[in-house]
Amino acid sequence: MSTQEDVLEASRRFYSALNAMLNGDAAALAKVWHHGDAVTTMHPVGGRQVGWAGVWDSWTQVAGIATGGGVRLGEQRVEVAGDTAYEVGVEQGECRLAGERVDIDCRVTNIYRRYADGWKIVHHHADVSPAMQALLARLEAKRAS
Amino acid sequence: MSTQEDVLEASRRFYSALNAMLNGDAAALAKVWHHGDAVTTMHPVGGRQVGWAGVWDSWTQVAGIATGGGVRLGEQRVEVAGDTAYEVGVEQGECRLAGERVDIDCRVTNIYRRYADGWKIVHHHADVSPAMQALLARLEAKRAS
Repeated sequence: MSTQEDVLEASRRFYSALNAMLNGDAAALAKVWHHGDAVTTMHPVGGRQVGWAGVWDSWTQVAGIATGGGVRLGEQRVEVAGDTAYEVGVEQGECRLAGERVDIDCRVTNIYRRYADGWKIVHHHADVSPAMQALLARLEAKRAS
Repeated sequence: MSTQEDVLEASRRFYSALNAMLNGDAAALAKVWHHGDAVTTMHPVGGRQVGWAGVWDSWTQVAGIATGGGVRLGEQRVEVAGDTAYEVGVEQGECRLAGERVDIDCRVTNIYRRYADGWKIVHHHADVSPAMQALLARLEAKRAS
């Protein structure tokens, strides 16, 4: 496979894992991410995680309340530069968090790096989603009441 | 200078140029961007530009209505991998578009690459900003009326 195809395959694995996560199972995400101190996520709910422990915790927290979701990456563009690659696109789909349905429609930037065990994702930035922030605020309020 | 410092300097130049743009002058942005077909912007108003012509057009359009703005990059993290580097952070400040003030508070991912003429920015993704989208919609409506 060409390097470009290797990166596209890493992206397919990430989005397959993301779909599993949106149905409650985060395990596959651990296989597609690099487990380093510098990996970062910037999710639609805002904020940022730095380092694998925080990144993994964020995925498992979402998986813990996610059911019946699905997402695909549209308008995908991949650029490869040596052992680093980045991908831009638009994530579209929907998910259910604690049973409440919310649309997914976020521009994303994903960054991948090549390691001894292949291409791994090291950074995921999805546009902030006011709808998802509002949903999480409602869930927090429900939990606190 | 170390490679890390070179990238930090490219970032400082980008944010200096961004501040000039928020005061109506986009010229310095042309010096800090790579002028290639694959460069991309994903601005707070949504959408995406691909290629230098489109990216430059987007900056000059904003500059044409921007006055008295200022922005700084907080929570900056830079990762260098060979001749590619990426930066994450939070842009904070304010701008005035056609005289209307709007806050800037966007997580960003910037990607830089090293060329013969130094490190240049090739991708800029700022979170979508509903406030900025609403402002632009008001300006469009005003223009159409």
